[in-house]
Amino acid sequence: MKKNVAIFGPSGYTGSQLLSLLINHPFVDIYSVFGHNSEGKYISEFISVSQKKNLKILSPSKFKKKNIDLVFLCLPHKKSFNLFKKLKDLKIIDLSSDYRFNSPSTYKKWYESNHPNPNILNKFIYGLTELNRDKIKMAKYVANPGCYPTSVLIPILPLFKEKVFMPRNLIIDSKSGISGAGRGATVEKLFFEVNENFKSYNIEKHRHLGEIQQEIFLYEKNINVSFVPHLLPLSRGILSTIYFDGDSTIFRKLKKFYKEFFKNEKFINFFSKDIPSLKSVNGTNNLNFSIHQDYDKKKIIMVSCIDNLIKGAAGQALQNMNLMFGFKDTEGLNIYPLAPK
Amino acid sequence: MKKNVAIFGPSGYTGSQLLSLLINHPFVDIYSVFGHNSEGKYISEFISVSQKKNLKILSPSKFKKKNIDLVFLCLPHKKSFNLFKKLKDLKIIDLSSDYRFNSPSTYKKWYESNHPNPNILNKFIYGLTELNRDKIKMAKYVANPGCYPTSVLIPILPLFKEKVFMPRNLIIDSKSGISGAGRGATVEKLFFEVNENFKSYNIEKHRHLGEIQQEIFLYEKNINVSFVPHLLPLSRGILSTIYFDGDSTIFRKLKKFYKEFFKNEKFINFFSKDIPSLKSVNGTNNLNFSIHQDYDKKKIIMVSCIDNLIKGAAGQALQNMNLMFGFKDTEGLNIYPLAPK
Amino acid sequence: MKKNVAIFGPSGYTGSQLLSLLINHPFVDIYSVFGHNSEGKYISEFISVSQKKNLKILSPSKFKKKNIDLVFLCLPHKKSFNLFKKLKDLKIIDLSSDYRFNSPSTYKKWYESNHPNPNILNKFIYGLTELNRDKIKMAKYVANPGCYPTSVLIPILPLFKEKVFMPRNLIIDSKSGISGAGRGATVEKLFFEVNENFKSYNIEKHRHLGEIQQEIFLYEKNINVSFVPHLLPLSRGILSTIYFDGDSTIFRKLKKFYKEFFKNEKFINFFSKDIPSLKSVNGTNNLNFSIHQDYDKKKIIMVSCIDNLIKGAAGQALQNMNLMFGFKDTEGLNIYPLAPK
Amino acid sequence: MKKNVAIFGPSGYTGSQLLSLLINHPFVDIYSVFGHNSEGKYISEFISVSQKKNLKILSPSKFKKKNIDLVFLCLPHKKSFNLFKKLKDLKIIDLSSDYRFNSPSTYKKWYESNHPNPNILNKFIYGLTELNRDKIKMAKYVANPGCYPTSVLIPILPLFKEKVFMPRNLIIDSKSGISGAGRGATVEKLFFEVNENFKSYNIEKHRHLGEIQQEIFLYEKNINVSFVPHLLPLSRGILSTIYFDGDSTIFRKLKKFYKEFFKNEKFINFFSKDIPSLKSVNGTNNLNFSIHQDYDKKKIIMVSCIDNLIKGAAGQALQNMNLMFGFKDTEGLNIYPLAPK
Repeated sequence: MKKNVAIFGPSGYTGSQLLSLLINHPFVDIYSVFGHNSEGKYISEFISVSQKKNLKILSPSKFKKKNIDLVFLCLPHKKSFNLFKKLKDLKIIDLSSDYRFNSPSTYKKWYESNHPNPNILNKFIYGLTELNRDKIKMAKYVANPGCYPTSVLIPILPLFKEKVFMPRNLIIDSKSGISGAGRGATVEKLFFEVNENFKSYNIEKHRHLGEIQQEIFLYEKNINVSFVPHLLPLSRGILSTIYFDGDSTIFRKLKKFYKEFFKNEKFINFFSKDIPSLKSVNGTNNLNFSIHQDYDKKKIIMVSCIDNLIKGAAGQALQNMNLMFGFKDTEGLNIYPLAPK
Repeated sequence: MKKNVAIFGPSGYTGSQLLSLLINHPFVDIYSVFGHNSEGKYISEFISVSQKKNLKILSPSKFKKKNIDLVFLCLPHKKSFNLFKKLKDLKIIDLSSDYRFNSPSTYKKWYESNHPNPNILNKFIYGLTELNRDKIKMAKYVANPGCYPTSVLIPILPLFKEKVFMPRNLIIDSKSGISGAGRGATVEKLFFEVNENFKSYNIEKHRHLGEIQQEIFLYEKNINVSFVPHLLPLSRGILSTIYFDGDSTIFRKLKKFYKEFFKNEKFINFFSKDIPSLKSVNGTNNLNFSIHQDYDKKKIIMVSCIDNLIKGAAGQALQNMNLMFGFKDTEGLNIYPLAPK
Repeated sequence: MKKNVAIFGPSGYTGSQLLSLLINHPFVDIYSVFGHNSEGKYISEFISVSQKKNLKILSPSKFKKKNIDLVFLCLPHKKSFNLFKKLKDLKIIDLSSDYRFNSPSTYKKWYESNHPNPNILNKFIYGLTELNRDKIKMAKYVANPGCYPTSVLIPILPLFKEKVFMPRNLIIDSKSGISGAGRGATVEKLFFEVNENFKSYNIEKHRHLGEIQQEIFLYEKNINVSFVPHLLPLSRGILSTIYFDGDSTIFRKLKKFYKEFFKNEKFINFFSKDIPSLKSVNGTNNLNFSIHQDYDKKKIIMVSCIDNLIKGAAGQALQNMNLMFGFKDTEGLNIYPLAPK
Repeated sequence: MKKNVAIFGPSGYTGSQLLSLLINHPFVDIYSVFGHNSEGKYISEFISVSQKKNLKILSPSKFKKKNIDLVFLCLPHKKSFNLFKKLKDLKIIDLSSDYRFNSPSTYKKWYESNHPNPNILNKFIYGLTELNRDKIKMAKYVANPGCYPTSVLIPILPLFKEKVFMPRNLIIDSKSGISGAGRGATVEKLFFEVNENFKSYNIEKHRHLGEIQQEIFLYEKNINVSFVPHLLPLSRGILSTIYFDGDSTIFRKLKKFYKEFFKNEKFINFFSKDIPSLKSVNGTNNLNFSIHQDYDKKKIIMVSCIDNLIKGAAGQALQNMNLMFGFKDTEGLNIYPLAPK
């Protein structure tokens, strides 16, 4: 029997992407969809959907939990706090940053305000699928990771977790497509402003660094992590170039480790020869990565790519749902880039 | 039991697109792949493919017809003439323009050379799927239509064929993404040249006008058709804006006709209210179109959109294969744009 | 002695473009700048300007006419009506559509509201520089033409005006870069929405058709003009493809006419051989155009290109100012595309 | 009296950019232009030029040094070695990498072949204008720096040269527009391949690192420099994000230093508050840069932007020519981005 899910926030890029994946999931039905700004519209306004699967978007105040197995929250940050009471008996996957921190003080450090529901924070599992699989399978609540942290933590965190190697002087230079900034209409995101331009932003403090630190600090607190995000003039994709100290011996060790570590993962591909490009992941739930040495063989350089709307948001959320329902990781995620490469 | 197909020319945009669709077809196996320039490479160089479905590309001289049910020719124009003898006992779908004209004289008029195999021309069915369905089902050889003609003929030809209305002063202003020009490396197709540019080309004679004329002339010879193609700074998609004489009475008549005519077609969508954009078709085998009146209500304006690599090439070829094998039109073509709209 | 100008509305794309041209004009000083939303900011926020030429943007209520020779209005449509009383003693160039129609009834037909200052309409000269040069030289008030009409009327209107030929069945298929839609933040203009997309809009009624009709109807009222605008995924430029009836005799006649007619104009270039592309005009005040025959030699096809922000807006406004001040057309407009072609 | 220059290699992006700057230089005439592939064409094919300034491109074998004051070599790497003998009596600015290394062994290390004219290497001045001004003024031969090194060395080298601070763990993450890869037609540079893609390349060895090392090693040999170039889907511009060790004390020291050091330079702008974007430099000869601290205040992060075809190639070459002829830096380089910012 199929599972029923409800979605809050279908009109943003993340919500639309999630809808368009779920609509083709073999074992899940979209039971109801709720939106503040999109109330009264049909989901066909946001995704391609056959007439019989089309649904009207309702006011969040109309939500009823009957028949619902799981709720996806795709609302902007801080916009679902009031909903939580109504939803708390159900499985929840939240795609915002509201529940990604496991302590109220960390939340306050990065979001400059007190969390309105501090006691619930440690009940959310950080949904980095491949690395927290066992916890996610048993989870009631999952906080879906940020897009930048997903691109960084999946390849980097195992080094700490598996005690392979301590990457000192860790520098993360990330570049994201514009969809990462959301669908809100602002001058900075207009075509004329983004087109033929490239820039970095939030150099001194970007909230996604909080997530990266939180996960790394579980294993090692004495480490400096620098993070600089940049905005690419393209629609989707994140490429993170990651630097840390390491000589040729370390390089060989890491190469050996990565060749093994993810070999049973369907979505994580270690490129032992080529350098992955955004084209190699866009339109998929894959994370493709590679490691290299700098010319002087004193630094290890990692290149990690994801589609920010899929593995970096809706795809990973759906993958987490698969685990929570006992499905295979890949159900509903057998998506391919259109071609050609 | 699955059907086996062979593909010649996997490395061009059309060939890669076809491979990436066929690799996911439920009832077809790619049995062998042949290429001149790509000989010795694997298809994984051109499309996303799992290791077990990966195939080595062979020299065309190695082709053997044993076990093959159908051959796709994705070679450049005039490059498969020598192959024909070897393949003639098999079903063939040719994606080049080599067999699209049913008479040697028409071929010569548009291609400025004599056809080397003139007697075979009238054995090829022009593969405009929705309009030639019955003939394609019985066909041994299919000539897959050009991308521009597909965008124009599917909505326009029924007016002639069904004797609905004679569209006088027919003007076709078409705009295509750069993939329509193929993967050959030339300066004009470099990113720097195409980016932030827009232009028309081949105004006085474009070979696709020959296809459009041929199909219209089947029903009406006394008609002027003007065709101007333009090059868009984007990867895929064709939008044709089509103008012809017609007042409000005609407009209502056409609207009524189109609401009915394609209603059972899965891929042809008449928009009775909105204007379709390239985004509404890219990544799909759909043709979306609409009709409008000009301000003075003296001209009918049609807007027709397709993905040039799918409905305009590989998708329609695969749809034709489905008919030739007795499958449903939609097998292997349930592809959706990624989201959001 | 230098002339002093004031500018209202520096923050839109048109206003910024005008500022950046005027700041380099040898015989003009920008005396003061006024803006509603940009009040209190400096013009350096919108254009590249040396510190000593930087100016603070003032509230429009602070305007004083003392020392001002000419005012440029770059405000949104209908936003400068209240200002007029204050400015009426000065020379004015208005870049909005508020004063482009010479009769209140035409204004109402296209803008669906009564003009608040109907008696002033016939005092504005329609600033199509090359065609209304004598009137503009003597003008107190100039209404700067719309971008689409500029691309169409400059090459087409002389056929009527000089009684060269009557272009029947006139069809204008125009394509514009996104800057034509202005800097207001709306979802439709976000990078994600425009990128990799192409569409037509306002097919049944676009207000720029009103301008085109008004100017043509001066010479011939019995003519049908169809106009369809499209939105290109690029920053700047308009290319209009224009179709009308005409055989080879007409074609030769027009070619001869065009070779002569604009030969003394610095900014209007008739391409007798090549087809102009957007790249050939972007970054300049040029209009480049060519004429061609369709395959059947029954239609004449014209291709006309301008930079919509320069010749289509700020450049033509500055050119008009040059005439009004008795300067050469080209003062401050010796701008070149960066290279390469 | 005007100076006469000759240009070899006008058809590449660098050569065209140089032509389009020189054609507007007030004190220089382009006397003759030579090209291998472009022989017989006119420069109007590559740049916008008035008829009277148009020139025919001649075969390099036709070069005569009479009347020539300076020669610009814009040929591909290793293509001008044979010309040198003919040109050696004249001033030369070479824009290739042929003479950038001052020792034959360094050349061989990075270019994997012996330099055919090793004795001449130390006669070429490395043309980093602002840092080698005195030597360039006296130079007969100048080797114009690479685009990536220009973006890095201008802001970084003074730290070493002026003994301000030793930037340890120096990491350079550079992103370049596609014009940096030149105009040669290859599949990787086609619009379809570059558009909507982003990737890094030559991670383990990029020849521009050789230039960066050479200049830094003049002052400090014991330093590790890592360099990773990336390819942006846009036409022009380089943004380098540069990381090195440094706490808050160092940060304040550097900020103070940079506010002073370049204050008399017309083209070098230290942004003490904002982060420069590509838009802030494209179309100009400017280098805009800023420095920042990472969240933990253990790393200094520098962002440096140039237009790769202007300050990174043709603009800096012309600036060097200005010095060699005793002109002001800015002659012929008063170019502004079109607007708006």
